[in-house]
Amino acid sequence: MTSIASPMALPSYAAIREVGPRDGLQNESVVLTTAEKLELIAALRDAGLRQIEVGAFVRPQQVPQMANTAEVFAQLPRHPEVMYCAIAPNLVGAQRAVASRVDLVQVFLSATESHNQSNVNMGIAQSLDQVAEMSLLVRQAGIAFDAVLSVAFGCPFEGHVPVERVLDLCGQLLDLGAGEVTLGDTTGMAHPLLVQQIICAFRERFPRQSLRLHLHSARGAGLANVLAALQLGITTFDSSIGGIGGCPFAPGAPGNLCTEDLTHMLHELGVTTGLDLPALMRAARLLERLLGHEVPGQTIKAGICKHLTG
Amino acid sequence: MTSIASPMALPSYAAIREVGPRDGLQNESVVLTTAEKLELIAALRDAGLRQIEVGAFVRPQQVPQMANTAEVFAQLPRHPEVMYCAIAPNLVGAQRAVASRVDLVQVFLSATESHNQSNVNMGIAQSLDQVAEMSLLVRQAGIAFDAVLSVAFGCPFEGHVPVERVLDLCGQLLDLGAGEVTLGDTTGMAHPLLVQQIICAFRERFPRQSLRLHLHSARGAGLANVLAALQLGITTFDSSIGGIGGCPFAPGAPGNLCTEDLTHMLHELGVTTGLDLPALMRAARLLERLLGHEVPGQTIKAGICKHLTG
Repeated sequence: MTSIASPMALPSYAAIREVGPRDGLQNESVVLTTAEKLELIAALRDAGLRQIEVGAFVRPQQVPQMANTAEVFAQLPRHPEVMYCAIAPNLVGAQRAVASRVDLVQVFLSATESHNQSNVNMGIAQSLDQVAEMSLLVRQAGIAFDAVLSVAFGCPFEGHVPVERVLDLCGQLLDLGAGEVTLGDTTGMAHPLLVQQIICAFRERFPRQSLRLHLHSARGAGLANVLAALQLGITTFDSSIGGIGGCPFAPGAPGNLCTEDLTHMLHELGVTTGLDLPALMRAARLLERLLGHEVPGQTIKAGICKHLTG
Repeated sequence: MTSIASPMALPSYAAIREVGPRDGLQNESVVLTTAEKLELIAALRDAGLRQIEVGAFVRPQQVPQMANTAEVFAQLPRHPEVMYCAIAPNLVGAQRAVASRVDLVQVFLSATESHNQSNVNMGIAQSLDQVAEMSLLVRQAGIAFDAVLSVAFGCPFEGHVPVERVLDLCGQLLDLGAGEVTLGDTTGMAHPLLVQQIICAFRERFPRQSLRLHLHSARGAGLANVLAALQLGITTFDSSIGGIGGCPFAPGAPGNLCTEDLTHMLHELGVTTGLDLPALMRAARLLERLLGHEVPGQTIKAGICKHLTG
C-alpha cells in the first residue's frame, strides 16, 4: 500500500461538553419531566461525557423547559469525575445555581450591543456589571465560573463582528474571574477561515488561556469548522446529543453540532474523546423516544462505520 | 483589528458538477416529467453550473425516474459553455447516449468485487471489458468519456478498500480512455484524513491527472471532507441541488453533498465558483415544488449569510 503521511497535524484528544439537556431541550416544544431528564443525563454520563449542561436557572414562565432545573439537580446522583453545569442569566439565577450545588456556573454575554439587548434587554456594560457580581458570588461559594460569548462569529443584526471587540470582551470576562471563555457561533455564521483567524488572534492576545468553541452546523459547515479548529490544536468543543437545539433566529435551521456526528468524525481522525459511540447512539435514540420525534443528527440514520464500533 | 494570516492555503477557484437531475432524482419516489426536468436544468444553468448530469440511459423498468432521459436530451437547448452529461451502464446505454448527442458519457465501476456484483451483477474484470467497448464507441463519436469509481473510500460489504486497489483501478480506467476519474464516496465512509491520504497517493501515481471527488454528507462530515480536499488543491467536486440523492444502503441517511451548502462554504472561504448563490436557492426551491417535499439542504433553511448575497 502506498503510504504517504497526511499533512494534517491533529491533536490526539478532544473533550466534548454535552449541551443537549439545556441548550438542546430549551429549544424543544416538549417539556421533559425531571425523571426523563435524569434518565437522559444518566445515558449521557454512561456514554463517557464528563461535562454536561444540565439546565438553566431562568424564569420558569419565560423558559418552561428549564422550570425543573433545581429539582433535576436535587435528584441528580453526583460523580466526582463529571461536571454538571448550569446557566445563570442574572444574580438571582446564580444564587439558585449555588443553592443547587452545581459544579460549574456559566454566564452569557453577547459580542454585539444589539444581540445583547435583544437577548437580555440590557446593554453590554450593564451585563458586565452583573457578571462581576455573579462571578464573586459563585466563586466565593467555591464553584467554577465560566463565560460564553455569543455571536462571536457574526451577529444576525450587525453582521460581521470585529475580532478586536471579541477579544476585548473575552479579556473583560477573564478579568472578572471566568475560568474559561467559550466563543459561540450562535446563529451559524462561522466558516473555517474565520474560525482559524479568531483562534490565532485569541492565542496572540491570551497565550496561556484555553479556548472552547460552541459551533453550530447551519449551512452544513459545522464539522468543517471543527476540522479547522482541530488543525490549530483546539481540543474543547460544545455539542448536543442528536443535534437538538435549533437556532432561534432561523426556525427549522440546523443549530447545535450533533454530539454523535462530532464524535464519529473525531474517532475517524484518530482523535480520542473517551466517549463510547454506540452508547451515544443509545442516548440519542432515548432522546427520540422522550421527544416523540426524530432528531436532526445524521449518524443515527447512517449508522456507525463498522470499524468504529469495536 | 488584529490581522493574522490564516495558515490555510486554499485554491482560488473550484468547479462544481451538478448531479441532482440524475443522481438526485434517481433516488426520489416522484418521477419528474420531461418539462419539469427541463425547467430544473434551466434553473441550474441560470445559476451558473457548467457541468450538469442530466440523466442515465438505463432500463426504464429498472429506473423509471430516468425513463425520459432521451426525451430530455432531445428537447434540451444546448449551450457551448455547458456540458450536459449522462450515465451509461453498458454498451446499449452508451449507444443511446451517443444517439442523444450528450456532451459527456460517464461509466461507473466499483472499487470492490462485492459492490460491483451487487450493483451491476458482474465482476470487475467483466465490467472493465465493457468499459473498453463503451470507451471506443463514445470517443469514436467525438464525445468526452469519464469514469466514476464507486465505494473508493470504503465499501458497505468489504469495509476498508486498500488504496493500491483504488489506484490500480483508476489506472485501468485511464488506460481505457477515461479523460478523468471521479472517486465516489458512495456510502459516506470518507473522513478528512482518508480523503487527504487518497489524494496524496493518487497524485504520486498520476502526477499529471486531475482528480474529481464525489463526496457524501453521511454523518455530517461532508463539508469537512471538502475542506480537507481543498487544502490539497482539489478543485472539482460533485454535488446535488438541495442535497437530494440518498444513500441506497442506508435509507433516510443523508447522501449527496448539497450544491448550495457547498457553494456557501466555498464562497465564505473566498473560493470562487462562478455560481450565483441566490439563483441556486431559487433552483432548490423549484425542486421542492416539483418534488412536493422539503429537501435536506441546510442553507435553504438557514438562509444565505448577508454578505454573500450581493
